Amino acid sequence: MKALDVKRPVCIVGLGLIGGSLLRDLTAAGRLSVYGYNRSTSGTRTAVREGFDASDDLDAVLRRAAEDNALIVLAVPMGAVGPLLDKIVELAPHCGITDVVSVKKPVYEEIRARGLESRYVGGHPMAGTEFSGWRASREGLFNRAAWVVTYDYAAELDAAGERVPQEWIDIFSDVVRLTHAVKAEAVPARVAHHDAAVARVSHLPHVVASALSIVGDNGGTLAQSLAAGSFKDATRVAGTAPELQRAMCESNADALVAALDEFIAILHDARAGLDSEKPDVSELVEAGHRTRVRLEARSGARKESVSPVKISSRPVLRLHPGGPNWVRQLAQTEDLGGRIEIF
Amino acid sequence: MKALDVKRPVCIVGLGLIGGSLLRDLTAAGRLSVYGYNRSTSGTRTAVREGFDASDDLDAVLRRAAEDNALIVLAVPMGAVGPLLDKIVELAPHCGITDVVSVKKPVYEEIRARGLESRYVGGHPMAGTEFSGWRASREGLFNRAAWVVTYDYAAELDAAGERVPQEWIDIFSDVVRLTHAVKAEAVPARVAHHDAAVARVSHLPHVVASALSIVGDNGGTLAQSLAAGSFKDATRVAGTAPELQRAMCESNADALVAALDEFIAILHDARAGLDSEKPDVSELVEAGHRTRVRLEARSGARKESVSPVKISSRPVLRLHPGGPNWVRQLAQTEDLGGRIEIF
Repeated sequence: MKALDVKRPVCIVGLGLIGGSLLRDLTAAGRLSVYGYNRSTSGTRTAVREGFDASDDLDAVLRRAAEDNALIVLAVPMGAVGPLLDKIVELAPHCGITDVVSVKKPVYEEIRARGLESRYVGGHPMAGTEFSGWRASREGLFNRAAWVVTYDYAAELDAAGERVPQEWIDIFSDVVRLTHAVKAEAVPARVAHHDAAVARVSHLPHVVASALSIVGDNGGTLAQSLAAGSFKDATRVAGTAPELQRAMCESNADALVAALDEFIAILHDARAGLDSEKPDVSELVEAGHRTRVRLEARSGARKESVSPVKISSRPVLRLHPGGPNWVRQLAQTEDLGGRIEIF
Repeated sequence: MKALDVKRPVCIVGLGLIGGSLLRDLTAAGRLSVYGYNRSTSGTRTAVREGFDASDDLDAVLRRAAEDNALIVLAVPMGAVGPLLDKIVELAPHCGITDVVSVKKPVYEEIRARGLESRYVGGHPMAGTEFSGWRASREGLFNRAAWVVTYDYAAELDAAGERVPQEWIDIFSDVVRLTHAVKAEAVPARVAHHDAAVARVSHLPHVVASALSIVGDNGGTLAQSLAAGSFKDATRVAGTAPELQRAMCESNADALVAALDEFIAILHDARAGLDSEKPDVSELVEAGHRTRVRLEARSGARKESVSPVKISSRPVLRLHPGGPNWVRQLAQTEDLGGRIEIF
């Protein structure tokens, strides 16, 4: 599918790993105006030297966004979202807004607190590494990654039998086009469902990586010398900057506690199986193996395909935003973990 | 350092991922006689067709080992070790014995039960993948991996002021040479210390991978669709054959329960930090980050080096087996997680 162009300029606020990689990909795509703000003067200078349209003057960048009616992408840590939205209300009050923050409820609360719902469509690319900052950004980071696109505003209006404003539909469409422009796959999800899902598959793995890293370290130099692939892979994301890990775990605390309780309960069962005359972890490892093979089978189809055409493992729904039943179709796609294409 | 040749033929019993990769590497090294037994007739046939000296007749292979005084490598799952040792006692009673099993105490108990201590030096290469069988074996699997070499027999004699027999010293030396022949690094460790260390850095990661895979799966298709690098890396080894995971976890149950208790206690602290008015996981992620960076710094030296000569990150001790104080030097090296070279 040839990606349709985003219908307006894109203004990225925050050029770290995610925002920076987005600037690189959209600039490389070459069909639209894209520029960004970076708080770090040296990071900005590096980006400019590499040929990107970047500035460390937030007010100027937001005024420019207001002038050319850009789609503003919030690519800052959760803690900076509120103050940034205040700036946007002041300097670019009519722009569409999306974000790339790894939790969606706290962002949506900041949006609601300022009455910006009709101009906001949340986003979260499921891509990244344990590194951060402009220097860690790279082209192609989002290739085939799921990019969550939220639609609570439309779902709520639809449930109340009200019409979704065209302005919001246009922003939604542009956010989907933006995900396609960087070769990601747009997965619709409501805020609460997103947060519960990523608590399981992203935030819990971070907590686990840290805890495991500590237990390995407690084993002293012999244990560390013997640590090989299984340990290094399982602890990799513990190397992520602590403030970024805190931001995502602490702002999704409720969902993370629920996932953690489930996880701890499984470990207690495993412990009981081990702490007996005839140690037995068959239940754990068999369920673990079954679920892991299922995950691999689902996401692995494209790897095993002999066709040169890459095939996504996510079911696709092609829909026309604003068309009949489209919000219900989004919910159905969400239930399947599917992706959407728009026309 | 040019690896010194193993001074006798090598007979590998079990040609799975580890035994098969060992057969490939030693055959490629080309300086010594190496052959193996595989229970699977089709696996054996494949190995023979690929040009390896393999057989599915265990009795014949062990008789051959007895004739040419081979070093026998036990490369079978824990459950098969006892019966195999009975066969060796019957058919190759004078051969030196080593093994590649991922737990050392249960193997040593089987050795002691048959009075074979003076002919046994335990081994454990810290290398592998989530796949198994001859088909998963490959050349180069052990490159730069730690290969634990146990020395409890010598340590006990030394502590009692007794002389370590030359026969055992020769087997120990050949096991170290064997690790070097496949480009691994020989890390001396006593059985109990090995088992405690791998409970932390290998068996616990397997338990964690399974538990995490189950929690992700419980999240349904949306969570699975959103699972990306952190989840996939952290759950990878849950894909290992369940019977292999059971064999290692259940036969190292005591040490694994201790590591699991430590791990669960850290998770409880993290949970308490999250389940509050002002969620806070700073203590966890800061310690996790610190320990992970330390691990990376220690094992990463060779990656960052600009020298074309690869430098190991493990401190090295060069020693002469049987020389003055050599057993004490092994213990010192073990405390540092270091490696040995022999002359």
